[in-house]
Amino acid sequence: MTTHLNAWQAIADKLKGIEIITESNQIAKLSLDYYHFSPILYEQLKDKRADLVVRPSNEAEVIKIAQLCYCHQVPLTVRGAGTGNYGQCIPLEAGIILDTTKMNQIHWLKPGMAAVEPGVKMAAFDKQAREIGWELRIAPSTYRTATIGGFIGGGSVGMGSITYGQLKERGNLQRVRLVTMTETPEVIELSGDEVQQVIHGYGTTGIITQLEIPLAPAYPWAEMIVIFDQFMSAAKFGQALSDSDGIVKKLVSIHAAPIPSYFTALQNYLPSGKHCALLMISEYDLAAMKALIAEYQGEITYCKKAKEIAGTSLLEFAWNHTTLHARSVDPNLTYLQTFYFTLERVEQMYQYFGDEVVIHLEFLKAGGKAVPAGLQLVRYTTATRLNQIIDYHEANGAFIANPHVYTIEAGGNKTIDHQKVQFKHKIDPCGLLNPGKMSGFSKLNLRN
Amino acid sequence: MTTHLNAWQAIADKLKGIEIITESNQIAKLSLDYYHFSPILYEQLKDKRADLVVRPSNEAEVIKIAQLCYCHQVPLTVRGAGTGNYGQCIPLEAGIILDTTKMNQIHWLKPGMAAVEPGVKMAAFDKQAREIGWELRIAPSTYRTATIGGFIGGGSVGMGSITYGQLKERGNLQRVRLVTMTETPEVIELSGDEVQQVIHGYGTTGIITQLEIPLAPAYPWAEMIVIFDQFMSAAKFGQALSDSDGIVKKLVSIHAAPIPSYFTALQNYLPSGKHCALLMISEYDLAAMKALIAEYQGEITYCKKAKEIAGTSLLEFAWNHTTLHARSVDPNLTYLQTFYFTLERVEQMYQYFGDEVVIHLEFLKAGGKAVPAGLQLVRYTTATRLNQIIDYHEANGAFIANPHVYTIEAGGNKTIDHQKVQFKHKIDPCGLLNPGKMSGFSKLNLRN
Repeated sequence: MTTHLNAWQAIADKLKGIEIITESNQIAKLSLDYYHFSPILYEQLKDKRADLVVRPSNEAEVIKIAQLCYCHQVPLTVRGAGTGNYGQCIPLEAGIILDTTKMNQIHWLKPGMAAVEPGVKMAAFDKQAREIGWELRIAPSTYRTATIGGFIGGGSVGMGSITYGQLKERGNLQRVRLVTMTETPEVIELSGDEVQQVIHGYGTTGIITQLEIPLAPAYPWAEMIVIFDQFMSAAKFGQALSDSDGIVKKLVSIHAAPIPSYFTALQNYLPSGKHCALLMISEYDLAAMKALIAEYQGEITYCKKAKEIAGTSLLEFAWNHTTLHARSVDPNLTYLQTFYFTLERVEQMYQYFGDEVVIHLEFLKAGGKAVPAGLQLVRYTTATRLNQIIDYHEANGAFIANPHVYTIEAGGNKTIDHQKVQFKHKIDPCGLLNPGKMSGFSKLNLRN
Repeated sequence: MTTHLNAWQAIADKLKGIEIITESNQIAKLSLDYYHFSPILYEQLKDKRADLVVRPSNEAEVIKIAQLCYCHQVPLTVRGAGTGNYGQCIPLEAGIILDTTKMNQIHWLKPGMAAVEPGVKMAAFDKQAREIGWELRIAPSTYRTATIGGFIGGGSVGMGSITYGQLKERGNLQRVRLVTMTETPEVIELSGDEVQQVIHGYGTTGIITQLEIPLAPAYPWAEMIVIFDQFMSAAKFGQALSDSDGIVKKLVSIHAAPIPSYFTALQNYLPSGKHCALLMISEYDLAAMKALIAEYQGEITYCKKAKEIAGTSLLEFAWNHTTLHARSVDPNLTYLQTFYFTLERVEQMYQYFGDEVVIHLEFLKAGGKAVPAGLQLVRYTTATRLNQIIDYHEANGAFIANPHVYTIEAGGNKTIDHQKVQFKHKIDPCGLLNPGKMSGFSKLNLRN
């Protein structure tokens, strides 16, 4: 796949009219994401670079790019804002990066549903959607910069998952329009269960050009910090709140000490040594919160109604922003992604690992139940030790979605999704889309 | 408590300006509810009559009535539309019925919340609330005629419970205003956990004069009938749909054959011998339904979008309207109310009882989980046999909320709620409000 410089010039020439980036610093920046949260991925991916970045404005330009890539057998890796954490959009085999950020049109926006281009930024979308009383169902902590297409292709959960579950739940994506990486690129549309082919597919299964997404009613979300003397009181409170069907909520984020000490901007509300909950609750249900908090010996130190929130949302301290804040204080910290399934298992791991694995929980719905998911912080020493930690969790019934690997399968449930592989064979027979990320297609080891 | 006719005349005279009903047919009608669903309650309650019905228009009139009742030590039983099924508003010790239907003002209606008088009819309320995009969170199948106050006082679940759980879930009632039955009646307000004192209290714990209720976003609800060859496929489908967090829903109602044959108006959509699901689903999530239905070998025979629904809603075939339709075909049928907790237990009972207990499930959220609740139809023979059926369920881990008894406790979990009793001692020290309904106060046997 080594293509000489003049060959790249020839390719660039054929893309006349489409924005092209060839400056090496820019290419470096647009070749990477937040993979550096993982010291293991950092070593593996830090030198990966595309040869060229293209920034199409519309589907016609995408088709032109796909055709050219197929014709020259050049890898193409699609990218949103690059806010992923496992190198989802890092080009392992160089080639072209397709940056979707100029494809940022909202085609239509109606109560309950919208059709958007993949490069629409999530917070910007919500600003418009809220004018008609709606908002995105699920969004990550990188909400301000992340794109909708990037989240569908590389994400899986976020704020809102406590109500709507994972992105892959039936109903959370209505329709998707794709360009195929074939000799004559085609435009195809998927709906119903077929949309599963692109969710969390890292862009290996087609180039998304349009998404039809269901929306959630836009509540005025109050934000609240509650502190606890005991970590397990905080964890049990998180479960009880998540199970309270009469309280409408968007974020239930629980942090063991010393994580709250990493939230520099929130220190006025986080006394040293306390554990905390960061919450987003419908303003209409605030009155019901007091008794629940009292039941778990919590203390409210911060409570702002939607209109009073001037600065940063608590969202930007939750999900993987927690890891970001922690690493800015202590770069030796990294993280894991864990389904504990039960609070008993959370407590077991809390006791067993002590300071080495500090527990951060995000509650979300899975299979109809609210479960504690871990984005726990790990004091990193060696890759061997990290794998021991993972193995201990798995041996004790937790499920780890390993964020220190870059293939879809190794970061997921370590099994091949034959439907996705089959679909890829159809729409990208030469494996040019983000090569090396789908083990089932590339015949890679499932654990790496 | 026997008060002579001329004494009643004296009482009526003192209520001048307030609507009073003394005509005996009218009194008979307003003394009863749908208690006749139970052949046992029918025998026990059919002759119960109030001496007088009063129909106040506002809180000032309620205070006047309470004062007079206290002064003459006359029982007072509050009533909404009388759509309850366990004699909640039937006066065991005669006295006065306070009919709230003239207290039907909506004080205010804002996004997410409303303040209403107890006699506001639920469907009428929703008509107004939907104009600003909201609706009631939970409502019974008697939605068209039932009052909000009657539902809070006598109900517990209904359509919407698949999202918001039971009425008693924290958050489902914001604030309540009461008149006490004391020498000098007081007006008190309850909020937070204190509202539990009135929910499902049969009006024994104060006379509700105002309610502040949280609302739900008003989706356009599509209605759907799905038929199945196997009952357990229908039941499993109900659970899977209820657990699908990406599909917004309001009603998941499952009926074993021959129940569908009782739904005369729906016969075009219900082939003989099939089992069925009656559903209300957000129109925005209809596309996601197809694959789910196929997974359980279901067949859609009826699907109407909100605007296409001209006649009766499927709601009026679900919850206890199922029993109503069944009894209009076969008056020997009665029913039970059951928490099965698991589908395994549903199947066990389905196999064990055969035609004697035909299973009707309504899915609802309890403790954060979607559970199958039974309103199963029972082919009634004797009270002894009915109790055997109840005992068999309970011996096998199901929980029965017995609808063949008239006290709060016997119809609930058979334990005394000491907080409610204590509260009643404070606001109704002489036990004049709906006497005989709260075992803990009246020192009655907990199972009758």
